[in-house]
Amino acid sequence: MISNSLSVACIGLGRMGSGIARNIQRAGFPLTVFNRTAEKSKPLVAAGAKAARTPREAAAAADIVVTNLMDDASVIATMMTDNGLLAGMRRGAIHISTTTISPTVSTRLAQLHAAQGSHYVAAPVAGRPDAAATGQLLTFVAGEADVVERCRPVFQAYTRQVLTVGTDPAVAMSLKLVGNFIVVGMLELFGEAYLLAEKRGVDTAILTNMLKMWMPASSEYVERISSRRFGDAGFTLDAGLKDVRLILDAAMEVHVPLPYANVARDRCITAQARGMGQQDWSALTEIARIDAGEK
Amino acid sequence: MISNSLSVACIGLGRMGSGIARNIQRAGFPLTVFNRTAEKSKPLVAAGAKAARTPREAAAAADIVVTNLMDDASVIATMMTDNGLLAGMRRGAIHISTTTISPTVSTRLAQLHAAQGSHYVAAPVAGRPDAAATGQLLTFVAGEADVVERCRPVFQAYTRQVLTVGTDPAVAMSLKLVGNFIVVGMLELFGEAYLLAEKRGVDTAILTNMLKMWMPASSEYVERISSRRFGDAGFTLDAGLKDVRLILDAAMEVHVPLPYANVARDRCITAQARGMGQQDWSALTEIARIDAGEK
Amino acid sequence: MISNSLSVACIGLGRMGSGIARNIQRAGFPLTVFNRTAEKSKPLVAAGAKAARTPREAAAAADIVVTNLMDDASVIATMMTDNGLLAGMRRGAIHISTTTISPTVSTRLAQLHAAQGSHYVAAPVAGRPDAAATGQLLTFVAGEADVVERCRPVFQAYTRQVLTVGTDPAVAMSLKLVGNFIVVGMLELFGEAYLLAEKRGVDTAILTNMLKMWMPASSEYVERISSRRFGDAGFTLDAGLKDVRLILDAAMEVHVPLPYANVARDRCITAQARGMGQQDWSALTEIARIDAGEK
Amino acid sequence: MISNSLSVACIGLGRMGSGIARNIQRAGFPLTVFNRTAEKSKPLVAAGAKAARTPREAAAAADIVVTNLMDDASVIATMMTDNGLLAGMRRGAIHISTTTISPTVSTRLAQLHAAQGSHYVAAPVAGRPDAAATGQLLTFVAGEADVVERCRPVFQAYTRQVLTVGTDPAVAMSLKLVGNFIVVGMLELFGEAYLLAEKRGVDTAILTNMLKMWMPASSEYVERISSRRFGDAGFTLDAGLKDVRLILDAAMEVHVPLPYANVARDRCITAQARGMGQQDWSALTEIARIDAGEK
Repeated sequence: MISNSLSVACIGLGRMGSGIARNIQRAGFPLTVFNRTAEKSKPLVAAGAKAARTPREAAAAADIVVTNLMDDASVIATMMTDNGLLAGMRRGAIHISTTTISPTVSTRLAQLHAAQGSHYVAAPVAGRPDAAATGQLLTFVAGEADVVERCRPVFQAYTRQVLTVGTDPAVAMSLKLVGNFIVVGMLELFGEAYLLAEKRGVDTAILTNMLKMWMPASSEYVERISSRRFGDAGFTLDAGLKDVRLILDAAMEVHVPLPYANVARDRCITAQARGMGQQDWSALTEIARIDAGEK
Repeated sequence: MISNSLSVACIGLGRMGSGIARNIQRAGFPLTVFNRTAEKSKPLVAAGAKAARTPREAAAAADIVVTNLMDDASVIATMMTDNGLLAGMRRGAIHISTTTISPTVSTRLAQLHAAQGSHYVAAPVAGRPDAAATGQLLTFVAGEADVVERCRPVFQAYTRQVLTVGTDPAVAMSLKLVGNFIVVGMLELFGEAYLLAEKRGVDTAILTNMLKMWMPASSEYVERISSRRFGDAGFTLDAGLKDVRLILDAAMEVHVPLPYANVARDRCITAQARGMGQQDWSALTEIARIDAGEK
Repeated sequence: MISNSLSVACIGLGRMGSGIARNIQRAGFPLTVFNRTAEKSKPLVAAGAKAARTPREAAAAADIVVTNLMDDASVIATMMTDNGLLAGMRRGAIHISTTTISPTVSTRLAQLHAAQGSHYVAAPVAGRPDAAATGQLLTFVAGEADVVERCRPVFQAYTRQVLTVGTDPAVAMSLKLVGNFIVVGMLELFGEAYLLAEKRGVDTAILTNMLKMWMPASSEYVERISSRRFGDAGFTLDAGLKDVRLILDAAMEVHVPLPYANVARDRCITAQARGMGQQDWSALTEIARIDAGEK
Repeated sequence: MISNSLSVACIGLGRMGSGIARNIQRAGFPLTVFNRTAEKSKPLVAAGAKAARTPREAAAAADIVVTNLMDDASVIATMMTDNGLLAGMRRGAIHISTTTISPTVSTRLAQLHAAQGSHYVAAPVAGRPDAAATGQLLTFVAGEADVVERCRPVFQAYTRQVLTVGTDPAVAMSLKLVGNFIVVGMLELFGEAYLLAEKRGVDTAILTNMLKMWMPASSEYVERISSRRFGDAGFTLDAGLKDVRLILDAAMEVHVPLPYANVARDRCITAQARGMGQQDWSALTEIARIDAGEK
């Protein structure tokens, strides 16, 4: 580990955020952390991080502030209150926002930073908690080119691949949403396909082999769906429904109907109604079974 | 090329059927051919095949009869008339049916063969005309084990991989339908995803790269969708709609609703209504564009 | 009751058919009856009808043959076998077909009659068994004008209103299907609306009053849905699903996607899967509840 | 016209709001008005109303403040700014909110009023601008019983019927949304039904008569759909899409999927994409035609 001249603050230490922070810490960046429930800061503090009492205090301590939060509301709340991130940001400092939020909100946040002399980089990540823990995330980045360049060592700490998509933060968010849409659409599609195969008497092991061969990158989901094991969530149904709403809203803003997203949304709602919100979002494939008369 | 003791008849010489027949001929099987419009038999006859005047005559000339037809109706018509295949079949001869048809019809055809002492092997193929031409199809097979075994040299003539799925012909058809459902579902999903990306200002080349990396087997479709080129159909929209209906009917028989198949069906109907029935079925992705106000 | 010069045969004596036959009998027409299970003929025979042993025998005895059967398959079977209706029809006799069947099949049946010198009148009925029993059905009629005219006294025996829609039997069937589509669509819509109202804490009695005021003709369905009582079926879910399929197929033939019919179809499939096929088809409204997490 | 002791302020003078205000004025209530664009106040001022310069000033002048605005955002903006309604409300004064907004926002607004000693009454209206102009609206009301009682003379000025639905403002909004959902669902259903009828060769005048007979309250919509005339909007597609979103969000909050609302939403999006946002929302029925290949 070499010492690193950029100081970093990490705000939001959930399953994804703690993995990101840990990798940044391992890479030798002086680290300040903040989480709403302080408990989650402890392992990082034990490993040398400073704990801030507010987002403002965390931001004030850093050249680069990395947030990993829940949704539009939590990002706005973390940024805008008296003790919020914006109030603490140093002039010229950079806010790397890894949370998947609305493209439109993303644009507004960039404007707020610009107005006070700090920088906003949209950097949503693809990958599940184990990828965050091992620094294997995929990051979609949009921001001013030189600002993004300065962030690169930080991205490298937790990311396997950085996909630069221009300067407009809304576009990075949009690409992330498109990616999540494809994932949720495949989940529903595979769920319907497995159900049809099973009810028609097909040995689903054949289907599993075919899908793993065709779409190696989907193997984990294929495994979950074929075995119907949805515990130990990589990405929860609750979070998934949040993203499907963002997808539908982002699509409506540009006048695009997405019938496949509608179905996915309804599946997530039913799954939530049945108390499955904290299961892996691939559990939405169970709802097709209910509609086929199971349970 | 070695001479082969089994004689084969090929009935149905469309884009797929002529490729299959040509490979069987190349493998050295004595070949008889029949097609409703005789024109299509000529290249095979020029290469040494005998031309039959009726399905009955073709069947009477062969140990193994391979049919590649359009749909339930054409298979039933080819089998059941006075000059049909069934009337010609030798005792103990085998009918390899490569057409994708209803699982239920498939079961009935097997019973008709059994009742008169011939054999039915359900052997629907996955792959497009170029794969048929080069002998690279994937065949799903169901039938009595020893009968399937006898067919193996014929399968090998036109098939890259033979997937045996038991003895019930309905199950082979079901698996084929499940496969086609996954394909059509991915087409619609990708179509919606590209549209969303484009309208939100994302450089779709990034999406194309991502999809090719994640799902290498889908590259041809990704290419078509991203470039919006749907001519030179590998599989037509008209044929695709036929299969989506088979999927929905097969699902209804076992009480499985398939909302993603419903959307795909509606897309195909709209595409047909707009005169796109002879384009590649990936052209259904154009309909999402129309619903987003294009054209 | 006055004696009537036209002799009538009634084939198919289920809930609807027996009501129709009884009213024809009451109107004084000499009546011959046939039903696959003879038991159902008894009350009519006790009241003076002759029992035929086959559809052919029934048809041979009558100037006008009224069929009330299940579906395409049962109509075709009743007409086309050696002992079928067509074989028995007198020259110039009329077949009034009250069964809701595919418009396309309807056209073919008319051609079969025409080819042998008898007449086909498409006359599907709207109304439930109690309306059949009391002679209060609504009949949609298509056929040659003079032939329809000759049927009028028979229609009047069991019908409150006769809606003539031209000479093409396919059009009468289409109109009937359109009517049923509107009914099933309203059922699903009301089901979703009640569920939303209830879960949002609205006193659904208010909704019930509003709907009865707006749509007095829907009162029975509104009553069933609001009270969630689906026994004593007027029209079963099984029969409803059959009609939704006819609707979707008739629409596909003319290149019309019907997303609301798709949803209705899926609801019926789920209801069937849950063993509700013999309940009133308004029971499909229960499926929205299951998707909202109930049960 | 008798003079009336209660003073009223009307904020928001669009097509609906100006009709409401005019009727309140006609009933003899001393009236203050405010509209963002002052032009629309003129006829009312000419008839004796006072024009306020801000919502705050309007509210300060009145015992009862009636707002008729656009959506959640406009209601919040009108209430919460320094020159907003809340800042001006007298202690004990009543805010009658006729705008259809989110049930959840409605609850929050009631709390804001309660916290400062004023009252909130949720009173969304059903009916189109001509009903507003003639005082024939239907009002759904929720609020504290005595407060609602005090509003009654005002309601009577512009309302044909007042439907009291308890004390929870969210419930009045929910009922209104349920009502709008039924309307938009019927529009889509009728649109699909007309299209099917037409393409199958049915004389749609028959359908029009049937629908007017079954659902007399829907005659205006049936007329628009059958004649395909969507100008002179009673309720615009843009406003309709806003409401469909409220419906879907209100449903999601209580874990209710609404597939019919999804379809309606997509239709409105497509219609907007085609520049039809200012047409009557029954114009969404045109989209089914596009999906059937028209245009």
